[in-house]
Amino acid sequence: MRILILGGDGYLGWATSMYFSRRGHDVHAVDNYLRRRAHAELGTDSLTPIPESLPARAAAWKETTGLEIGVTEGDLLDFEVVERVFRDFEPEAIVHYGEMPSAPYSMIDHEHATFTQHNNVVGTLNVLWAMAELAPDAHLVKLGTMGEYGTPNIDIEEGFIEINHNGRSDVLPYPKMAGSFYHLTKVHDSHNIHFACRIWGLRSTDLNQGVVYGIQTKETELDPRLVTRFDYDEVFGTALNRFCVQAVIGHPLTAYGKGGQTRGYLNILDTLQCVELAVLNAPQAGEYRVFNQFTEQFSIMDLAGKVIEVGRDRGLPVEVDHVDNPRVEMESHYYNAKHTKLLDLGLKPHLLSAELIESMFASIERHRDRVITDHIMPRTRWRAPLRERTSP
Amino acid sequence: MRILILGGDGYLGWATSMYFSRRGHDVHAVDNYLRRRAHAELGTDSLTPIPESLPARAAAWKETTGLEIGVTEGDLLDFEVVERVFRDFEPEAIVHYGEMPSAPYSMIDHEHATFTQHNNVVGTLNVLWAMAELAPDAHLVKLGTMGEYGTPNIDIEEGFIEINHNGRSDVLPYPKMAGSFYHLTKVHDSHNIHFACRIWGLRSTDLNQGVVYGIQTKETELDPRLVTRFDYDEVFGTALNRFCVQAVIGHPLTAYGKGGQTRGYLNILDTLQCVELAVLNAPQAGEYRVFNQFTEQFSIMDLAGKVIEVGRDRGLPVEVDHVDNPRVEMESHYYNAKHTKLLDLGLKPHLLSAELIESMFASIERHRDRVITDHIMPRTRWRAPLRERTSP
Repeated sequence: MRILILGGDGYLGWATSMYFSRRGHDVHAVDNYLRRRAHAELGTDSLTPIPESLPARAAAWKETTGLEIGVTEGDLLDFEVVERVFRDFEPEAIVHYGEMPSAPYSMIDHEHATFTQHNNVVGTLNVLWAMAELAPDAHLVKLGTMGEYGTPNIDIEEGFIEINHNGRSDVLPYPKMAGSFYHLTKVHDSHNIHFACRIWGLRSTDLNQGVVYGIQTKETELDPRLVTRFDYDEVFGTALNRFCVQAVIGHPLTAYGKGGQTRGYLNILDTLQCVELAVLNAPQAGEYRVFNQFTEQFSIMDLAGKVIEVGRDRGLPVEVDHVDNPRVEMESHYYNAKHTKLLDLGLKPHLLSAELIESMFASIERHRDRVITDHIMPRTRWRAPLRERTSP
Repeated sequence: MRILILGGDGYLGWATSMYFSRRGHDVHAVDNYLRRRAHAELGTDSLTPIPESLPARAAAWKETTGLEIGVTEGDLLDFEVVERVFRDFEPEAIVHYGEMPSAPYSMIDHEHATFTQHNNVVGTLNVLWAMAELAPDAHLVKLGTMGEYGTPNIDIEEGFIEINHNGRSDVLPYPKMAGSFYHLTKVHDSHNIHFACRIWGLRSTDLNQGVVYGIQTKETELDPRLVTRFDYDEVFGTALNRFCVQAVIGHPLTAYGKGGQTRGYLNILDTLQCVELAVLNAPQAGEYRVFNQFTEQFSIMDLAGKVIEVGRDRGLPVEVDHVDNPRVEMESHYYNAKHTKLLDLGLKPHLLSAELIESMFASIERHRDRVITDHIMPRTRWRAPLRERTSP
């Protein structure tokens, strides 16, 4: 199958590009290096030393496996680029990771908030218009986030919920209460994509993904140059990945507030499985479906406990620091999110184990000299504009 | 009260500016003439001959009433303009009409779709950031649309709905199924504003308005130069206003498809009342509330029937033409939308009457020489990008 990977230079995008290439698909990856530029802006970097460009990564892939991954270095905000890629590659499936993915980045200030919303919403609109004009039968596999739902006091369903009200009933989009200007872009995308499916008969799977952890995939292990990026800083790092780095370098685990925040998590190996299951089982024309893509729920303190246990077995003096929560969020709440649709398609979860945490420790130790410690503590505060007003 | 009117040059924005000014408030109107430029682009124009600029309208207002309306000719996309207005005027209430308001405009092509989403979403984000930084106690009265809800098969509530699910219960945002890239911008705004209220403690009223009809207000009647704009073309005209123009010039009433599409409607006099009721009854800090702002529900054929009746009484040979529906929408459906919150605050509706339609006919007849007939029939088709692909 001809599979277009948008955001193919990223943590998941590069791993996904290799995964599909190795399984015999024709893969074309697009990226504008937004993540690399944002890291340069913030003074942070991937823990893992990734090659200097997407063509260099594709060249290493070809040397290692003999397989080709096509590359376009370009911006989804440039509609001519998007149209050219669609015309030249004629994708049958589009896996869309190509967005600014950071909640803290979107909350830094006015400029970063508006940039994030413009970048994600208009980039995805460009993809939808290119599909309508040039590839109306293709399947858009869009990466959303579990963060679209927030933390409602009822069970979270997969995208839609049957509501019985005043004696009538309908199945409607699940209400959204996102927690950052970034998470809101995924809500906006979901509404735009759903509409495009209704009016143009496009088909799309919105993967509302939980928090991904892990460094290694079967493909990254083939050669050191095939490593995927790994972020642990306050802006791009996510809970378990950051905790593992902190444990290895002897930094306290930074739990925000009480640490009762509960979310869905999954191994990067399961991201690859889930995306493949979505691609291989396309919805009908006009169908917009949502899968909740995670395998287990954990609170922040659950994760910290697991990292502490494995760390102490290795003689690491791991501790938790309950730092002031920079976000505005509930620190203890009901959370029960459904996630059966991907299991029904055949997902075999890699559940979080001590062995996985140990293997992450080992991978991190190989690159510990690359850790930049002064961007681990949270600085980006959700209430910043209010504080700026009252400070002298 | 210091009331900032964003989009103060528009159909409702200018009428609202005069209304509050006459009631003793300090009014400042902002507009970038987007609507005027869009009309120039499309070859259409307001039926009523409005003065050439917002300063000219404010000057006419001053000559007529002795009252001042402050003016900024500027774009909400320019954050420096927004900040300067907030710093200089220090608004206590912000009435935000300042968006591209047309569903067909947003569906013309890729460029118009992305422009509309960028313009509305980023413009409103700029207002929210300016509020957080410079006016966190002010009250944002934002014009949304009943079109955010679409046509669900259950009763439409006012912004939020209590959902009982698997033995638990929560009150959550009402699910959204908007019908154009324009209507979707209002959905996106609603989510962004709700978030800003939660994290920054801002207060906002989202007025999900129905379709407005009418030309005259108490203020426009004071002097011919105080007229507000009146659109009847396929892009900016709305159902009843367009039908009245069609009846007067002898054009068949353009019902799209079967004409069973049912929506909420209100008189422009009630828009002014509703906005005033919202402004004078501000929510608590941190509260985001939604009022459904309309007074009656009608189907397209209900409206056509009323116009035919009044027209035939005046000897006009009014007929209905069921044109191919250019939109993708249900043409007969359940529709029952709640609208009690504004009534509870004291709204006294001006219900649609034969007298109102007659008075609209009279107003339209005064300007009938200005009617541009070749932009009345719908040209903008929701499925256009698919057709472009298959045409030679």
